[in-house]
Amino acid sequence: MVAIVDVGITKFGKRKESVIELAGEASKDLVRKYDFDFVIVSNSYSGEFNSISGINSLITTYLGIDEVPSVRVDNTSGSGGSALLLAKSLLESKEANTVLIIGVEKMSDKKTREVTKIISSLLPENERIASLPSLASLATINYMKKFGATRESIAEVAVKNHYNGSLNPYAHIQKAVSLQDVLSSPVISEPLRLYEYTPISDGAASIVMTRNEDALSYTSKPVYIKGIGYSNNTSFICDRDDFTTLDSVRRASRMAFKKAKIEKIDFAELHDMATILEIIQSEDIGLFPKGEGWKAVINGVTRLDGDIPLNPSGGLNSKGHPIGASGIAQALEAFWQIRNEAGNRQVKDARVGLSLSMAGFGNSATVTIYGDEP
Amino acid sequence: MVAIVDVGITKFGKRKESVIELAGEASKDLVRKYDFDFVIVSNSYSGEFNSISGINSLITTYLGIDEVPSVRVDNTSGSGGSALLLAKSLLESKEANTVLIIGVEKMSDKKTREVTKIISSLLPENERIASLPSLASLATINYMKKFGATRESIAEVAVKNHYNGSLNPYAHIQKAVSLQDVLSSPVISEPLRLYEYTPISDGAASIVMTRNEDALSYTSKPVYIKGIGYSNNTSFICDRDDFTTLDSVRRASRMAFKKAKIEKIDFAELHDMATILEIIQSEDIGLFPKGEGWKAVINGVTRLDGDIPLNPSGGLNSKGHPIGASGIAQALEAFWQIRNEAGNRQVKDARVGLSLSMAGFGNSATVTIYGDEP
Repeated sequence: MVAIVDVGITKFGKRKESVIELAGEASKDLVRKYDFDFVIVSNSYSGEFNSISGINSLITTYLGIDEVPSVRVDNTSGSGGSALLLAKSLLESKEANTVLIIGVEKMSDKKTREVTKIISSLLPENERIASLPSLASLATINYMKKFGATRESIAEVAVKNHYNGSLNPYAHIQKAVSLQDVLSSPVISEPLRLYEYTPISDGAASIVMTRNEDALSYTSKPVYIKGIGYSNNTSFICDRDDFTTLDSVRRASRMAFKKAKIEKIDFAELHDMATILEIIQSEDIGLFPKGEGWKAVINGVTRLDGDIPLNPSGGLNSKGHPIGASGIAQALEAFWQIRNEAGNRQVKDARVGLSLSMAGFGNSATVTIYGDEP
Repeated sequence: MVAIVDVGITKFGKRKESVIELAGEASKDLVRKYDFDFVIVSNSYSGEFNSISGINSLITTYLGIDEVPSVRVDNTSGSGGSALLLAKSLLESKEANTVLIIGVEKMSDKKTREVTKIISSLLPENERIASLPSLASLATINYMKKFGATRESIAEVAVKNHYNGSLNPYAHIQKAVSLQDVLSSPVISEPLRLYEYTPISDGAASIVMTRNEDALSYTSKPVYIKGIGYSNNTSFICDRDDFTTLDSVRRASRMAFKKAKIEKIDFAELHDMATILEIIQSEDIGLFPKGEGWKAVINGVTRLDGDIPLNPSGGLNSKGHPIGASGIAQALEAFWQIRNEAGNRQVKDARVGLSLSMAGFGNSATVTIYGDEP
């Protein structure tokens, strides 16, 4: 098995730096401290957003580690989870001993309409009439109808995650909002509103991974990866029977819990591209029975001081979602929480955490479980 | 260690099918025969060439294996080699038992000028005045001057590889050419001419990989991967001291030979994006002393019936170079050659082979050694 031994991150948000410079900012201190024998760049859209290819080699050149082999791993919004899995495999197969994963995306050079169009290119051609934000609104309508959830319960996810993000110095939107703010923000796709969606962000996050047996020579407090689960679902969204559950997330989390040989987690970073998704995912990974997740939100169970804090970092909702960086930033948050280094947003007694990195509308899901012991 | 147990391929060339359909054509028989637990798609430019993202999930959906987890691996022209390495790691770490790698690229929808511009996006911004074809011509001029190589010796690579390709039913250009044909074809970048460069091709190639201990339950004749070596070099081409050698190729091949614990190979598939590169690479992987590779060409040593046949498939030069597919198609050729199934282009007594998958101008290199025993 493998462990995370160090991390680096940029502030997420609208940044003036190039995609290469952002990757460098998150990684340069790590490159100074360690010798890497493999670099994985988690990035999806450098061609579309930045007119760059071969980004992995451009980044290692920028960092002055020209000879270190590298590759770009892409699984759209779920790239970070896939990068973790492949880094784990490279280490366990002994093809590498010290892997640097750099998640990075620079999105803000394009207009919102262009960004939405580019991301919608993951949908089959005959479904591109839809967009990921509109699929989330469809899920909201179905969820409310099927389970009697109140509109407020869904908006409360944004209130909670903006509050958490206000405590995170790397978050894009470091500002708490009220329920009233959320429900009076502009409608994006009825009934969901602006503050319920992740913003368009630039940013980078980097982690250093080694095998467990080497971890203590890097740090006295490694964070261990206890298991990774992964599964896909059809890209034909029209073929889904039910918009209130994500099959890939259910399968991936079952696999992760089984591999990690644990049943209980202390916190989770979920893929809240839209508020409703955090609720659906919290049920699909087994924290609450199906249809009950919205009640956990209004009862405060998922707040920082609740029984099972969700998205202590602020989540995609407030931290931002630079696509290739998100899954790696989740691993970073787990690293800090488990080491008790998360500052004002520290989850009490955080020893075991989970992250969900998801592509498309659950087209792919990777669930990683982290702990303070192997 | 791991083995290749089955393969699939499309004809390379200008194809009317979409990138997804090409991937399907190379893979559908394999999907019918085996249960996969991971799919790696080797592809670099689906966004730029085809306005598609999430290509891995779109392909598994198209193939009707919706739930099988997948990822896209990109290392520009060297993607295939990187995909082999990551598949090997997934298998050896037991994250997967049966991996399908699909290499695919659909390039011909764009005009030549656009294709060149897109591929040049792997160069640092201040070097984009150059292009990969012009770097090859610079290498040619330097090589001829430094080692006294004749112009004809370099063109003879195209004669040899077009002849080999004429025997390969999957090659793009299935037509032998004479030295006169090559040297009278249009100049692309002085002194190199049209027939000395790889054409712009569409195509897909797929391979099935398992761990060695499982391989015999799939086929009585697995082709074993004996070792993979990999290294990078700076993306700043101006920083290279010497255009007549590729440091990443030298390092990657030394690593591959060391891991494979062998010294001699029976054939090699090299990355002959331009004729000169086959010569330089044949020296860098240690087949000939530096500056002697051109003599081996004119002496027939690298022909199909020579001592060490190079690019028996026709190479990139005649088979074509659908970017994400090339490295996987090289593995396919090794599979067929070692199983004695390469038809009219069969290398005599081919038991151990090598492939070189290269990105940019040696920005990255992956060398894989294959054999008929583990």
